[in-house]
Amino acid sequence: MTHFADRLADAIDRAGSPVCVGLDPVVDRLPEEVRSAHWEPARAIAQFCSGVLEAVAGVVPAVKVQSACFERYGAEGVRTLEGVLSEARGRGLVTVLDAKRGDIGMSAEHYAAAAFEHARADALTVSGYLGPDTLAPYSGGVFVLVRTSNPGSDAVQSQRLADGRTVAEMMADHVRAIGEPRRGARGLSDVGAVVGATKPEDGPALRARMPDQVFLVPGYGAQGGTPDDVRGMRRPGARSPGESGLLVTASRSVIYPGGEGDWRQSIRGAARRLASEVGAIALRP
Amino acid sequence: MTHFADRLADAIDRAGSPVCVGLDPVVDRLPEEVRSAHWEPARAIAQFCSGVLEAVAGVVPAVKVQSACFERYGAEGVRTLEGVLSEARGRGLVTVLDAKRGDIGMSAEHYAAAAFEHARADALTVSGYLGPDTLAPYSGGVFVLVRTSNPGSDAVQSQRLADGRTVAEMMADHVRAIGEPRRGARGLSDVGAVVGATKPEDGPALRARMPDQVFLVPGYGAQGGTPDDVRGMRRPGARSPGESGLLVTASRSVIYPGGEGDWRQSIRGAARRLASEVGAIALRP
Repeated sequence: MTHFADRLADAIDRAGSPVCVGLDPVVDRLPEEVRSAHWEPARAIAQFCSGVLEAVAGVVPAVKVQSACFERYGAEGVRTLEGVLSEARGRGLVTVLDAKRGDIGMSAEHYAAAAFEHARADALTVSGYLGPDTLAPYSGGVFVLVRTSNPGSDAVQSQRLADGRTVAEMMADHVRAIGEPRRGARGLSDVGAVVGATKPEDGPALRARMPDQVFLVPGYGAQGGTPDDVRGMRRPGARSPGESGLLVTASRSVIYPGGEGDWRQSIRGAARRLASEVGAIALRP
Repeated sequence: MTHFADRLADAIDRAGSPVCVGLDPVVDRLPEEVRSAHWEPARAIAQFCSGVLEAVAGVVPAVKVQSACFERYGAEGVRTLEGVLSEARGRGLVTVLDAKRGDIGMSAEHYAAAAFEHARADALTVSGYLGPDTLAPYSGGVFVLVRTSNPGSDAVQSQRLADGRTVAEMMADHVRAIGEPRRGARGLSDVGAVVGATKPEDGPALRARMPDQVFLVPGYGAQGGTPDDVRGMRRPGARSPGESGLLVTASRSVIYPGGEGDWRQSIRGAARRLASEVGAIALRP
């Protein structure tokens, strides 16, 4: 398998924008047409996701699939998730499995096998709380949770260490260290970080600590993150959107755009607007 | 559903020992008889787990199922996991789903639904790195990762904060606070903590910060944790093993005991020895 960060950078440059559509399907919010056609929720979600993938392929370089929305339905949901990842791959989209896994020893190896060998995702979100040694088994792309977008994250991640760093900055230093030997031809590491757009005061400091990490950035749009917030997280010296070190993700604002007419058309329109907006941010100045 | 910690304490008192057998099935280590009978790994694992449950029911109060070992095989593995949890319940065992989940908002609600409504586990292991607010949706029993048994965990969890606490102690204080309103008739909270037996220097300090938490204690036996290490984690004032605030878990040393003869008999013997050893630790002095 080729280097994840290189493939992602190439895909971003082809699309012209470092953006990622989040598939967080919730039955209650699906288009009436889809909801009423299926008795089983996992089937409705499968049809909806297929429509979303058709709509966004060729518009955005990547999708992020929220594992919890599928696991909710047990084995049937996991089968649906496998199908969604497979279809996304077939449509040329880079896939991020947002499962926030984290365990020790053999269990970490199993999670890596589940994500990269079985489900064949290109990248996986992981937790680093168990220590940097637990991240070694993930041979594909990973995004380590550093600074998350929810209000309550400050109670852990903003705590100040005796050495002056915050807990998030300490995690960032681990991410940089383990990512150092895993940089590709374009300078970016396969070990990236999750950094929420809703904590703009932290973005530039975290970028300084992680110069070669791709930041998977949730919280843009629906959760309140603005273009200025994202601008502060760009990687210095980037020559193209693919080297900006950004992968801004939006879910609800794209997959539930509201409005009249065909829902796939509406989603395609929302994805276009997002890609154009974030594409402009990614380019200097 | 009745209070998890109350049910667990009752089950521990009936068994006489606060011990939990870990189901971490790995195909390579299964008994030859089981391995050779199945082409599909998930089937071999299903048969093995069924044999383990038969062997340990009536000997120990609880089992801990390692989700990664099943997820490794995708939807088929998750279906197997659901079957194992269902059979364990049918055999009167309290079930802990060791999946170390953690996410924000709606996604946390989905993980809670997956564990408690769909798979019907009694308790789930969760990560608190995203902040205490993200733990609110878990209405069943939870064990929050505080201090894990792997060597590399020190690089995060032993880091010293400016206020003098370690990161693990800061997490412990969050666990105590969110667990406070969720104590049952026997004084124990539904919000427990994962505290490894391999970090004995931290056990007593963490117990002082979390007086009413059940400690799910991995690392005993195979990973090097000793009876003395566990003794330091007991809850003061406990009147029975069920109130000791301990749930010591061992996997490999019980489910792969080696030896001649029927493997189920060997596992039952190993579970008996573990229960007897830990039962003695749980009682004062």
